[in-house]
Amino acid sequence: MQPWRFIRITDQTLRRRIHALVDEERLRTADALGERAREFLALKVEGILDCAELIVVALSNGRERYVFGRRTMPHMDLASVSCAIQNVWLAARAEGLGMGWVSLFDPARLARLLTIPADAEPVAILCLGPVPDFPDRPSLELDQWTVGRPLAEFVSENEWLFPESAPGTAYQPK
Amino acid sequence: MQPWRFIRITDQTLRRRIHALVDEERLRTADALGERAREFLALKVEGILDCAELIVVALSNGRERYVFGRRTMPHMDLASVSCAIQNVWLAARAEGLGMGWVSLFDPARLARLLTIPADAEPVAILCLGPVPDFPDRPSLELDQWTVGRPLAEFVSENEWLFPESAPGTAYQPK
Repeated sequence: MQPWRFIRITDQTLRRRIHALVDEERLRTADALGERAREFLALKVEGILDCAELIVVALSNGRERYVFGRRTMPHMDLASVSCAIQNVWLAARAEGLGMGWVSLFDPARLARLLTIPADAEPVAILCLGPVPDFPDRPSLELDQWTVGRPLAEFVSENEWLFPESAPGTAYQPK
Repeated sequence: MQPWRFIRITDQTLRRRIHALVDEERLRTADALGERAREFLALKVEGILDCAELIVVALSNGRERYVFGRRTMPHMDLASVSCAIQNVWLAARAEGLGMGWVSLFDPARLARLLTIPADAEPVAILCLGPVPDFPDRPSLELDQWTVGRPLAEFVSENEWLFPESAPGTAYQPK
């Protein structure tokens, strides 16, 4: 299906506008997080103004024409695009570069900013480039936002046998 | 968020039931494809009865509790799961194993078969194991189902500038 569309952002005004849009959503997310708002606002969640390359990834338009493998699950094009992005991520890492996938934005507003048609959909803002270091644990763990749970909690046999979300990892709204 | 839930299928009766469910959707998809139905039915689209390991991947339940990075785009958990699956795919390949991601199924019926709760969602049936060979082109190209388009058609700068879907790759319904 090749549903991926990559828009490379080289215009600095556009970069700043994308940053403003993300920062607005960052504040809205903080608000939605309630008691963890302040803690959330202290996290580094994007590198839009600093990264070497800024790339917006969108799902293609004309999505409804593709039936193969998505008649019952039309969102499988997001799965395809995500696999492609994961390949970019790993390829970047193999070249000594870091990447961040920012999903803090209103997709309709980002679409308007980049003339993305109404039946397409932006799903990622990728910040790509040199980074000071590669920590050996996810940064949200290092920042004590969350605790990684072991794979054993996510694998069961022949039926759904999973523990409830562990405290501290799931956020319970007020 | 770690939204991935892996269910390893070791029960042979269950494996056959999953196969039956996929085969039913295969026929429905053929029907939806209209004039390419016969051609579609000749394709190998799954290896459920033959593969060494059969794994169903689902999105977690309690999804609405996670706000970070998905307040405006709740489907970002599918993106996370897809990245995890792509890692499995590449790790398998590095071990000399093949994998296929089957998405030809009715998610509600697969959920019932595996006691997956209503607020979780199966998104993949993975067929994993030894394969006779690793072709150097996608099998849907080798089978002349579709033609891969070059990356240049999927990259633009600062705005949406993409050609319409090329003939032969997009399916135009009747």
